[in-house]
Amino acid sequence: MLTKSSSLMRLVGELKKLPGVGERTALRLAFHLLKSPRNLTALSESLCEVRDRVRPCSTCFAITENDPCAICSGNRDSSIICVVENSQDLMALERSNAYQGVYHVLEGAISPLSGIGPSDLRITELVKRIEAGQVNEVVIATNFTVEGEATALYLTRILKPTGVRISRLAHGIPLGSDIEFVDAATVQWALQGRNEL
Amino acid sequence: MLTKSSSLMRLVGELKKLPGVGERTALRLAFHLLKSPRNLTALSESLCEVRDRVRPCSTCFAITENDPCAICSGNRDSSIICVVENSQDLMALERSNAYQGVYHVLEGAISPLSGIGPSDLRITELVKRIEAGQVNEVVIATNFTVEGEATALYLTRILKPTGVRISRLAHGIPLGSDIEFVDAATVQWALQGRNEL
Repeated sequence: MLTKSSSLMRLVGELKKLPGVGERTALRLAFHLLKSPRNLTALSESLCEVRDRVRPCSTCFAITENDPCAICSGNRDSSIICVVENSQDLMALERSNAYQGVYHVLEGAISPLSGIGPSDLRITELVKRIEAGQVNEVVIATNFTVEGEATALYLTRILKPTGVRISRLAHGIPLGSDIEFVDAATVQWALQGRNEL
Repeated sequence: MLTKSSSLMRLVGELKKLPGVGERTALRLAFHLLKSPRNLTALSESLCEVRDRVRPCSTCFAITENDPCAICSGNRDSSIICVVENSQDLMALERSNAYQGVYHVLEGAISPLSGIGPSDLRITELVKRIEAGQVNEVVIATNFTVEGEATALYLTRILKPTGVRISRLAHGIPLGSDIEFVDAATVQWALQGRNEL
């Protein structure tokens, strides 16, 4: 039998730090990994590799292995910058295949409750990129949450003096939705932003 | 942006091998780990430690860091052996604090569909332990599934000739259950095994 201080229990403790993983799930994952030493090694090596190789791009702050990242150094339209909260949002936008410009990752959103103010975000760096010229438009793609909207509002105020065109992702009813089940605020936005056919 | 071949995507691939973890969860876990390099390192080291230290006990085949394990080498009643499918089941029995004997981990259950026969389990080793003497009773605590019951039946047949007393964990209604919602087979077992008050 294993004591509380054993390496397996330490592994369970580490796994419990992951989001959505409790004591039971952590134990199940640990026993699963124990069954296959090869997977155990591969996961361990993979973790070290990520720690050693992945860093934020010095231009757009998206996570990358090569600095500047593939988007910043690639054949993209650098006159339009899409501002996102984090790299996951960037990946979601990339999956849409609808955007050809570059990005700027804020690394968070303004959240007074969590003690995150504008100075904790990559806003100074964004302003510098815009002031360096060549930028015609900034698409604000922060989340449609209280924090994301507050960040969008703050960015608009900060960026207005630079004279750059500022836009925001469209609000509306998502694809495949039954209007019956869409929340009232979204329906309101969809009505206000209705398009002529 | 990260390419498909990047270290983060390899980590996502490794995390996806865990039970109950799909593409989206793996991505969420990877990004969570990326936020804290200290946790990343700790998890990686913990995995290596488990791989290097944890092994089956040479007597009872429970996972352990010291051979023989704490139960086999401890102050337990070695005249009674509780047979379980795996170390997780052993831990569940230990949590009950109701058992003072030793264990024997089969490392599985007979399952013709998965190609697991009696020779893939630690049955020969169990018979050897019993034949070495000093054992009065074997408590079969395999799961109450088709595979567990088949294993229990097989063990009973194999162990009968040794003359040792063989018992099985009691079937019945679990604590805190509403009889209304208990399945018919369990109610049938509970009726057949009813105790006089």
